[in-house]
Amino acid sequence: MAPDLSQLCLHTITTRPWSLEIAIEQISRAGIGGITVWRQALSGRDPAGAGERIRAAGLQVVSLCRGGFFTGLSAAGRQRAINDNLAAIDEAAALGAPLLVLVCGATPGQPLEISRQQIYDGIAAILPHAQACGVRLGIEPLHPMYADTRSAINTLAQATDMAERLGSAQVGVVVDVYHLWWDPHLMFEIERCGRLGRLFAFHICDWQTPTTDLLNDRGLMGEGCIPLAAIRQAVEAAGFDGFHEVEIFSSVYWQMDQTRFLQRIITAYQAYCAPP
Amino acid sequence: MAPDLSQLCLHTITTRPWSLEIAIEQISRAGIGGITVWRQALSGRDPAGAGERIRAAGLQVVSLCRGGFFTGLSAAGRQRAINDNLAAIDEAAALGAPLLVLVCGATPGQPLEISRQQIYDGIAAILPHAQACGVRLGIEPLHPMYADTRSAINTLAQATDMAERLGSAQVGVVVDVYHLWWDPHLMFEIERCGRLGRLFAFHICDWQTPTTDLLNDRGLMGEGCIPLAAIRQAVEAAGFDGFHEVEIFSSVYWQMDQTRFLQRIITAYQAYCAPP
Repeated sequence: MAPDLSQLCLHTITTRPWSLEIAIEQISRAGIGGITVWRQALSGRDPAGAGERIRAAGLQVVSLCRGGFFTGLSAAGRQRAINDNLAAIDEAAALGAPLLVLVCGATPGQPLEISRQQIYDGIAAILPHAQACGVRLGIEPLHPMYADTRSAINTLAQATDMAERLGSAQVGVVVDVYHLWWDPHLMFEIERCGRLGRLFAFHICDWQTPTTDLLNDRGLMGEGCIPLAAIRQAVEAAGFDGFHEVEIFSSVYWQMDQTRFLQRIITAYQAYCAPP
Repeated sequence: MAPDLSQLCLHTITTRPWSLEIAIEQISRAGIGGITVWRQALSGRDPAGAGERIRAAGLQVVSLCRGGFFTGLSAAGRQRAINDNLAAIDEAAALGAPLLVLVCGATPGQPLEISRQQIYDGIAAILPHAQACGVRLGIEPLHPMYADTRSAINTLAQATDMAERLGSAQVGVVVDVYHLWWDPHLMFEIERCGRLGRLFAFHICDWQTPTTDLLNDRGLMGEGCIPLAAIRQAVEAAGFDGFHEVEIFSSVYWQMDQTRFLQRIITAYQAYCAPP
């Protein structure tokens, strides 16, 4: 019997060397259920056409990655970010992606508290358009090692709190094990996030020892120290029944034959992400 | 008028190319008040003699770095770690160091909760000897990017809580801006740590953008995004009046002429660590 990969989803960035068209074909052929599209994979393409192609291949569009980066020293720069996020919402709607993932931003040289307020203001500014388009917004807390330039939202508690403050059912949280596994409050916060109806997405990969690059040295599930099965169990206990999205940035794996890499992803998913 | 560097302290690791003897001479000549000795700098030396030499040069021994690494898969391995920490306490006492800094450890392949319990057990096991020797123990929470192999204690709240649970005035916390600057609860936790009498030491450097190496790419004060003056003000408001310890691991600075590097440290300290 073929393995059930209906809950598995691949981010286009994971197999970055593939064009969107090849990724759709390969992912579909492997029996994987979903795809999360990175905006650069849409470059030069019509999002609506891309969405049709994905659905015609039997795949679900899980989300569009990524909006965000709301912070900045100047009001003009922050307005440009808002405009870009409005465009991203349009792309998500055209693509048929129900969720836009937000990497919220941070600006070195201004206090994190200021960045956090700018993030709040930015999401509040795009929220009406997201509601009008039926696109949900997912705040992704990033690992504290990205607090300088990528996100001033670094814990699940912060992300859930911000979604709650924004006060719309359209805004929730993206749980990525790479960013959050170390958090002593992780299990409690997963339960709280789910109970509040804010747990919108679940990203998986692994933390390698040693990690030789802050950005592009993520591991395949099982290659590192993240207790994946336990975290999957926790998000499911919190009511999450969506996709398990494989998001791996890896200079090593991007150099590998991507068809073989995809097979390794599937094997690793089945071995290490199953509930204990 | 010569600048007042009486509250400044240098870690021997910061100017790693220097032998302990040269470091003592140079630090003393620069008018710096204190030195924190790393155990490898004592290699082949009598700790008591090293302590006498430091005091004869007019310097204070601020602490000994570092004990810890209490975690492990086997009971025998954990007992070896305890034995090594007992030896480190003896070294600290002989050197005349009032504080032993603890990098607590983490073991990939076992849950962080297990590592945390082993850390607690390890400190509890060495505490009577530390009390008998008059050496304080400082739990240093490490940045979450070190949660795989270096420490399962990754926030100031965790470190303070563990010191409180251990229930001895001999156990406190080391606040290092590099590890903690991103924490949304940092200012609250500094106040709490100080109020509980647990704030034993204060380490400074900076977080560079980009950071190209997870271990040895720390910046000089002012080169990065850490709000140093604000954090110094917070630790002082919390009652801390001890040394400002410069602890920089940097492949770049270790290759530089160390006398010139020391001058840059002093200039950076005066420019960026002054209260606002």
